[in-house]
Formats: sequence, structure tokens, C-alpha cells
Amino acid sequence: MARSLGRIYKGFQRLGSLSSTQTQLRHPPTTVSVRGTTFVRTMVALPSLFFSKPRDFSLPNSSWGSEMMRLYEHYNSQCEVETEEGEKQEGPWRRLPSYNRFLKYATGKSADCDISLKIIQSKARLFTRNIRDPGAAFEYVLFVNSEEQKCMCIFQAGHLLEGPPGHVHGGAIATMIDTVTGTHATILSGPVMTANLNINYRRPIPLGSTVLLESSLDKKEGRKTFISCKVTSSDGSKLHTETTALFLSINFSQLLLGE
Amino acid sequence: MARSLGRIYKGFQRLGSLSSTQTQLRHPPTTVSVRGTTFVRTMVALPSLFFSKPRDFSLPNSSWGSEMMRLYEHYNSQCEVETEEGEKQEGPWRRLPSYNRFLKYATGKSADCDISLKIIQSKARLFTRNIRDPGAAFEYVLFVNSEEQKCMCIFQAGHLLEGPPGHVHGGAIATMIDTVTGTHATILSGPVMTANLNINYRRPIPLGSTVLLESSLDKKEGRKTFISCKVTSSDGSKLHTETTALFLSINFSQLLLGE
Repeated sequence: MARSLGRIYKGFQRLGSLSSTQTQLRHPPTTVSVRGTTFVRTMVALPSLFFSKPRDFSLPNSSWGSEMMRLYEHYNSQCEVETEEGEKQEGPWRRLPSYNRFLKYATGKSADCDISLKIIQSKARLFTRNIRDPGAAFEYVLFVNSEEQKCMCIFQAGHLLEGPPGHVHGGAIATMIDTVTGTHATILSGPVMTANLNINYRRPIPLGSTVLLESSLDKKEGRKTFISCKVTSSDGSKLHTETTALFLSINFSQLLLGE
Repeated sequence: MARSLGRIYKGFQRLGSLSSTQTQLRHPPTTVSVRGTTFVRTMVALPSLFFSKPRDFSLPNSSWGSEMMRLYEHYNSQCEVETEEGEKQEGPWRRLPSYNRFLKYATGKSADCDISLKIIQSKARLFTRNIRDPGAAFEYVLFVNSEEQKCMCIFQAGHLLEGPPGHVHGGAIATMIDTVTGTHATILSGPVMTANLNINYRRPIPLGSTVLLESSLDKKEGRKTFISCKVTSSDGSKLHTETTALFLSINFSQLLLGE
């Protein structure tokens, strides 16, 4: 289920201005995390305890196989390109960092902050990043191409994702599809919630495989964002699943306030 | 993605008869595990290393909350009933044990065994049982009612299943739906594969909640088994998701042999 943090981000900004005398900006963030990935390149003042250099799970580690690395380098090399004059500039793709936790909020109100007051660090972890052992579960990295309105995900499936013997659980595949399409919908439409996932499973994915998830915008109609997503083998020759997904734009504070 | 172990079970039986001089039956199994749950009450001879009393994850543990326990006792008390004469007999419901691993097979052929020869213990674990910390991730138990062709699952969502802040990831919900409907389809139709999951998300599930999954047979047509599944609050008053699922009967050995 996918929702984003648009409103909470505004809450963060207000909180920052409110609490500047109580907080220290030891590791100034330039981004805000949504669904464990990062989108907004803006300074936000937050308590220092949150910035003890969180691990970015979307960077290569020793568990990544040759196919995962090859594809990573293929897209990563297109994140920054060189002009004819030898200057570097942003390329068509952008890698999205990925963390394993949200900042937790209790509900509450004040004159200056209508979303949240009290910051709570809990034990909660993002489902797709809840195992720290590299390579054991979900290894993945997302790249977004704003011009083409596409999102690509390189996914290496670890041994803890088993469903049928030797193959990836259908729920683990659905989890990656929800993660990728939900992230894409959030980029395109702001705060959203997954309303429907319609997944056709065509071919099982062996454990240890590296596959590609390609998310494309179909259309936007009012509050609705329609996305489609294919999971293929890393060379694109085999189709594993085909999905249509529907996301609804939401007022995110309702979720946080439990309304 | 859901598949069952009908053929592998036959392979087991053959393997047992083949390798009786090499194996010891220290903890004679009376069941065979499919999707981490157990269906077949038959003696199977297997190497002793597999029977060091595997943990049955569907039995209560200290992390189960009061609602999880209440519902467990509600269904468990209907697994064995007393007749008017005071005799005990099987009730309408049956609890399905649940383990966290499959026995792993390499491919190979012999005159007596067309499925598998070599047993490999790997690191692979069932996706829904890959975290041993009680209460941290998926706590669930399945009950099946053969007469009503229904399957009920009581599911308590742990803090490692987070999607949107404070709520269960849509992929974790899809995982439970695939697990429950796939198990149900396997009971009804033998070896199957998930062909389609069409999930409508109606209302988010807060982390820590206990919810009910109710799986019902819609119809069977040739190789196709159509199942529907609702996820509701534990008292049934709130609808969280509605799903239709399609499963195709398969020849399971093809999957094992990678064909």
C-alpha cells in the first residue's frame, strides 16, 4: 500500500522552524524520504538524532552479483553526463536513495503545527529493508526518468524470499511491484494510496535472479494515477509478471492522524 | 506465487523407499509441508537431519496479543468436538501447522525417481517465516473448513512490515493474501500456480493490528481455480481489502526441474 509524505514534509518544515533552538543540524539533509526513497532536495531542520548517517540501501554492496552491478552501472552512468564542452550536467536518469525507516510521529496539534508535535523513534522498519544481512532478501535500486515518465528498478532476489521451492514468493514480487509503482505514482502525483494492484503472473522467478521492473505512467484522471509495470529477466527476453496499478491522491495527514 | 508439492511428495515417497538404508526416521512425520503448511497425514521416510523438531510457527507464542489469542482459541476449539456420548471427534475446522523451510532438491533422474535425487539443505527460508523474532513480522495461523470450502487466517502484523508510516506495507498484505488463497487452492485442487491476484485496497491496516483473512472458493473450471479473499478487522466490521485470485493447476515437477 502506497502513500507519500507530502504533508508530513510540510510538518517537518514547520517543526524545524519551531524547534530550531532545541535541535542541531549535524548532518544537514538535502532530501526527504518517501517510501524509503528520497525525492525532495530541500533543507529541512530536524533533531540531530535522526542524522547519524543512515545507510543508503540502494548503493552497491558485496552481495550484488555481476548482472545487478552491470545494470546498476548502466543506469547510474546516465545520471550525470558530460557536455561537448566537457562540463558535467544532470543526465536523463536519477538514482533514488533508499533507507529502512521513517520518522515516527504521534498525533497532536499546536497553533503552528497541525500535523505532528512529538517525534517518536520506534522499532518499525520499512518492509522491503527489514533485513540488514546483504543479499538475503530484497536488494534493489530505483532509477527515475522524469522526461520519459518511467521508473526502472533492478531487483536481486535473496534466499529469504522463497515461495515455491527455489523460487521467489508471489507476495515478494507483489511487494516489489507495489514499491516501484507506488514510488513512481508519488513522484508523478504527490501523496497517493494504492487502490488496486492487478498482477498477472506469467513465469516464476528463481531465487538469486536479478530482474528488471519497468514502471510506466498510463494516464492521470483527477485523483487517479494509472501505472503499469512489467517484471522481466535482466536482458528483457523473459516476461515474469504484468501489472496494472491504480493510485488515489490523498490528504496524507489523515493517515498520520488515524482519521 | 503459489505452487504445491503434490509431485514432490510422490518423489519423497520414492526417495524414502530408495534410501531406507541410508536414512533414519528419528521423528516420524505424519504430514507433508506445502507452502509452509501441512496437509498430508502419511508416513514419509526422510533423512533424520530434517526432523530435529522443526518449529511450528502457527502455534501461539508470547508475542500474540489478546485478539490473536481470542480468535485462535475460537477456531482451535472447533478442531475437535465432543459427541453427546462424550467421545472426541474431528470438528469442522483444522489448524494447519506452518514451517519456515522447504527441503531443497537438485535435479536429476534415475530409474526409480523421475523428480529428484539429491537433497540439499540451503539457506532458503519461506518468505513469510524468514524472521524468527516472535511478533516482529508475520504472525499468522490458518484454519481450513473442508465442508464449507473456506480457509480462515488470523494475522497479526509486526513492526517490520511497515509501508506507509505506522501502517502495513501493501506488499505484506498481498503476501498474506497470496499465502492464504494459494494454500486454499492447493487444498482444493492439488498443485497450483498463482496466475492472477487482483487486490482492491479499501482501508490501511495499522501496524500491530490483528486482522482476519477469509478465503472462499468461487468456482473450478478445468485447470482453473477461482478464489476470493477478504481482509477485515478482527470483529469483521471494517473491510481492509477485497481480492479475486486465479490459480492454475500445474505439473509441479516442471518447476523443480526448471523446465
